[in-house]
Amino acid sequence: MVIGIIGLGTVGFGVADILTKEKTRLEKTINEEVRVKYGCALEKVSLSPDIIYTADYHQVINDPEVNVVVELIGGTTIAKSIILEALNNKKHVVTANKALLAHEGKEIFETAYENGVHIFYEASVGGGIPVVVSEKEDLIANNISKIEGILNGTTNFILSLMETDNLDFDEALKIANDLGFVEANASLDLDGIDAAHKIKILAMNAYHKHFDFDLITTRGIRSVTKKDMDYAKKLGYRIKLIAKSELYEDSIGIDVSPTLIPLTDIVGNVMGAYNVVEITTDYLENVLYYGKGAGRYVTASAVVSDIIKTHNKEIWSHDYPVTDKIKPITRSQYYIRTNQMLNIRYESYLVIEKEHIYITEEYDLKELKELLKDTEYQYFKVRS
Amino acid sequence: MVIGIIGLGTVGFGVADILTKEKTRLEKTINEEVRVKYGCALEKVSLSPDIIYTADYHQVINDPEVNVVVELIGGTTIAKSIILEALNNKKHVVTANKALLAHEGKEIFETAYENGVHIFYEASVGGGIPVVVSEKEDLIANNISKIEGILNGTTNFILSLMETDNLDFDEALKIANDLGFVEANASLDLDGIDAAHKIKILAMNAYHKHFDFDLITTRGIRSVTKKDMDYAKKLGYRIKLIAKSELYEDSIGIDVSPTLIPLTDIVGNVMGAYNVVEITTDYLENVLYYGKGAGRYVTASAVVSDIIKTHNKEIWSHDYPVTDKIKPITRSQYYIRTNQMLNIRYESYLVIEKEHIYITEEYDLKELKELLKDTEYQYFKVRS
Repeated sequence: MVIGIIGLGTVGFGVADILTKEKTRLEKTINEEVRVKYGCALEKVSLSPDIIYTADYHQVINDPEVNVVVELIGGTTIAKSIILEALNNKKHVVTANKALLAHEGKEIFETAYENGVHIFYEASVGGGIPVVVSEKEDLIANNISKIEGILNGTTNFILSLMETDNLDFDEALKIANDLGFVEANASLDLDGIDAAHKIKILAMNAYHKHFDFDLITTRGIRSVTKKDMDYAKKLGYRIKLIAKSELYEDSIGIDVSPTLIPLTDIVGNVMGAYNVVEITTDYLENVLYYGKGAGRYVTASAVVSDIIKTHNKEIWSHDYPVTDKIKPITRSQYYIRTNQMLNIRYESYLVIEKEHIYITEEYDLKELKELLKDTEYQYFKVRS
Repeated sequence: MVIGIIGLGTVGFGVADILTKEKTRLEKTINEEVRVKYGCALEKVSLSPDIIYTADYHQVINDPEVNVVVELIGGTTIAKSIILEALNNKKHVVTANKALLAHEGKEIFETAYENGVHIFYEASVGGGIPVVVSEKEDLIANNISKIEGILNGTTNFILSLMETDNLDFDEALKIANDLGFVEANASLDLDGIDAAHKIKILAMNAYHKHFDFDLITTRGIRSVTKKDMDYAKKLGYRIKLIAKSELYEDSIGIDVSPTLIPLTDIVGNVMGAYNVVEITTDYLENVLYYGKGAGRYVTASAVVSDIIKTHNKEIWSHDYPVTDKIKPITRSQYYIRTNQMLNIRYESYLVIEKEHIYITEEYDLKELKELLKDTEYQYFKVRS
């Protein structure tokens, strides 16, 4: 296979590096040449001398010798043109672009299928964790009912730091920012949009449905305070930003919400920049994947396995019907912190410094908000 | 594809059942017929009326229409004949037979490759957890350095029960036995042999080496007492039966040993019949898979994904050189319980009821045993 890498940032450079270092072994494994012909980016970076540098992506996607195009520039404008043109030129495409697939996946998948070429996107969800391929292949016997995960490493890093270093949100955010862990558009991380992109991709393949990304409700971590974190811990929980989807009879529940997870649960113990995905099915019951959610070589590892996978003959179909029956998951136990005693059903209850903290029994959020309408309160979902 | 299932016990029945219930969906996914033609077992079981029952496996492996043979009878004698004959008849083979592959894998893999047919064995390790395919495909960019896991659900169930129900080993074993959780040959579970079969398969694919199963050292859980478990917990650890492999410059370290795992570690929190596998590599760093290690549909899920995978054209190669450089992993921190104070380097130390309990610094076991030679002691490895 002859490969063109478009985008030579952190991950693109990692991909070129792995393909150079592991070339002999990979070629032996698939019994085929594995050659990077182009590295394409606006600015030249230092690559192996065998790789042609170009600033013009058309050179890559129009070269008849290239059969795998790797899109790693991100964003939803030029990246879309590159991918569609490459697919229409009968090139296999490998991408890590979760935002683009979450918004424009249907058109891209259809274009790939019509052209009889692969589109692989393992690196778009969970860094190097092989969860996309698991859904499409390894769990093929199963009907997936539920997916729950920590899919954004940045927010998990911030939440972990607030706990370990006893910081407020703003202080922890500043550190994450200084370390370069927060996306240029911080809202993508902090407001749960990046996590929503990823759960959207997983839910699409789990339930075999396309749907509009904007139907997904997200609540990020800006409302999480150190105080709530401490109270949650006293009650045996840790607050995590959870992306979740659940299949109902006539609809799909999806949302991204800060959620109290029991400390006895593996998901509650995923700290720092790690990601976790737990998938619940009919036959396999629950299976959980855990690993680093980002990093040059971590993500490049998934891109490289996708590149090698284009060697296969089987084209994934994404021929799913469209649905608009998407709603947030509002039926849950809740954490409520308020300044007065409430008349609600609860499982645990604490009074700390004149604040009343409840872990409620299961409520629908609407019903709960009605009960709380004359009260000032903080609330989060609780995973039972 | 036309399938013959040989062995209709727990898993075989589950496979037939899934293939019957999910037939339409699976056929649509791979755009090919998925038909079970035969169910073969010594005793007839109730199957879908479309499936021909036979007690004669030759009928299955000699039928020109059958192209996938599923071996689920277990054991290393007849199963071996069935698999080799099926492969030589150009049938793809799917098996869950870890003992057979651990002992006779090389011949079986070579026979499959020579005949240009698939041999898939996801269900042989970790129940339904997709770890075999991950090693062969998803982690292809990576050089694997270390594998660590809880690979035997029965022993993990017994250890968990000892802790939660405050039981000694013999009492917990009796309960596990009564529940039918222990293999007919209990030594396979209790002495770590089953876990060794599984780490052998994972290590073979991780390091691209064949080696003699008997080179693997195992220590099971018979020596684990409730007392040691309690002391371990006081020190912040839980005792787990860990199967581990590690790549050295000139050799491979492999063993199965009861090991103290920090309670802060995910692996230390895997309870009951669950399995976990953690793989450490150069690029992906560490990735962890967790799920049920056994169960009718859990294991059948992996068998079915293997059956569907035979639709692919790519034949896995297992063309690995043979090595005899296999040794136990003896360099470690250790837990020592003894009745006298010792002159050793240690990280933590407790005295409880006239017993001295140490978490040592790193020692080689030989050196440590020399220091302890005039002492009565209990010892386990400690994961730092």
